[in-house]
Amino acid sequence: MEIEELLEISTGLRDSIRSYIAETADYGEIIVRRERDVTRKIDMFAEHALEQELASCNYCARIISEELGDHVYPKGGDPEFTLIFDPIDGSTNAILGIPFFCSSIAYSPDVDHVSFDSIQASVVATIYGKTYYAEKGGNAFVDGKKLPREFKGKTKPIFSIYTYGAESIPESVIQFQKGAKNVIFRVLGSIAIEICLVAEGVIDAVMDVRGLISGYDIAGAALILKESGGLFTDMNGEELRSEVGEMQNIALLAALEPETYRKMLAVLASK
Amino acid sequence: MEIEELLEISTGLRDSIRSYIAETADYGEIIVRRERDVTRKIDMFAEHALEQELASCNYCARIISEELGDHVYPKGGDPEFTLIFDPIDGSTNAILGIPFFCSSIAYSPDVDHVSFDSIQASVVATIYGKTYYAEKGGNAFVDGKKLPREFKGKTKPIFSIYTYGAESIPESVIQFQKGAKNVIFRVLGSIAIEICLVAEGVIDAVMDVRGLISGYDIAGAALILKESGGLFTDMNGEELRSEVGEMQNIALLAALEPETYRKMLAVLASK
Repeated sequence: MEIEELLEISTGLRDSIRSYIAETADYGEIIVRRERDVTRKIDMFAEHALEQELASCNYCARIISEELGDHVYPKGGDPEFTLIFDPIDGSTNAILGIPFFCSSIAYSPDVDHVSFDSIQASVVATIYGKTYYAEKGGNAFVDGKKLPREFKGKTKPIFSIYTYGAESIPESVIQFQKGAKNVIFRVLGSIAIEICLVAEGVIDAVMDVRGLISGYDIAGAALILKESGGLFTDMNGEELRSEVGEMQNIALLAALEPETYRKMLAVLASK
Repeated sequence: MEIEELLEISTGLRDSIRSYIAETADYGEIIVRRERDVTRKIDMFAEHALEQELASCNYCARIISEELGDHVYPKGGDPEFTLIFDPIDGSTNAILGIPFFCSSIAYSPDVDHVSFDSIQASVVATIYGKTYYAEKGGNAFVDGKKLPREFKGKTKPIFSIYTYGAESIPESVIQFQKGAKNVIFRVLGSIAIEICLVAEGVIDAVMDVRGLISGYDIAGAALILKESGGLFTDMNGEELRSEVGEMQNIALLAALEPETYRKMLAVLASK
């Protein structure tokens, strides 16, 4: 699958999600409760919308996704490739009318042993219209503009740090949050978009110590950051190498500049 | 001035700001640097866009605003009322392409001694299209829907807590951030929108301990929250009573439910 086709599928999907939200008052209603997570009407709608996009192209794919798990569509078919899919990243924002969430699709030509390293292309389509995308070994872009970009008038580094509700937060992270001067913090509520904003040069680093992230949440954004020249590891500085379908409980660190990455890794290491 | 006219002015202003951003590559460029703040091209554009809206209605007003300070427009005229104006709340987001910022206009029929209590109507117009507004003694609305609203599928309370870069952060706030379970934190970067989200029932409480807020930042949102039945004070639980033009270095607490307000005030008081 070429990036153009993945872009078409992603933007078609975004259009469907926008229409569904506009037409469905209770789109945030919870239909399945799991121990740590829930599935809402909008999530399930988006899962099926992707299947419809695939059906209209006559594709059979392995899909690793949040709601429907690891499955083949159409059922019983012989998959040609794998898609790693997060229908809605930023669900809380989505159901509350905060227009900061996205759909993420990553493509691997492999059907077995799909790791981050085998992802060849990805798209993160934000609900507000910006579309981030990358091909492996190529560059990364937002709406045709190469990443990272230059911004006029940015005065301070921006950090996105997720700690809330964590079982334990490294004391060094708390001290960093407490002591950092001349910085801006954001917690925007969509880790995939925030990693894309790191790739873009908007946010300087994203750190998530909660250990709640799964492979499908970040597969798309990880390639976009890597192809932008950024760094992306777990909290110990290790690359994420396991199979995407088995990646769970990830705590992560992402930064565009090596110096920023090292500085934040040192914060994490000093516990 | 009726609320309808204030809404017309605010939405006209939003259209102008959207066009300016679309047409101006360097809209974030800094043109004035002050000790704690900067003025950018987009801020100054928005200040003049409001003046144009007033001119087209043949109004003369006292304007208390971020960039141009406390002034009368047209210059030398005899003002009929006061507008408290924040052209762009969420400037950092605005210049970095994060679509979460707003313009805020509050209206007082008084020309002298303008306090929060004398504000009769206000509008907070978000760049993404939602418009929050209220009239004193009436109700508050977002796009015609009465505030607060009900949301399907909200599972946890959401707190927006601003501490970054503060000279000192109460230890009790750090402990709350560290220890709170089953909560969601956001730091979205526009205090005016976040207070409106409290009025809407999206965010449960906003706390800003930095002491950096000025009267014009929150004058519009404060009325919207109050008319939604919410509570809004400084960090000591005191109402903001001084003249809006002299209100600076505010640390604030805003919540919709009295119980949430008391709980968060207790966090602040336990230092």
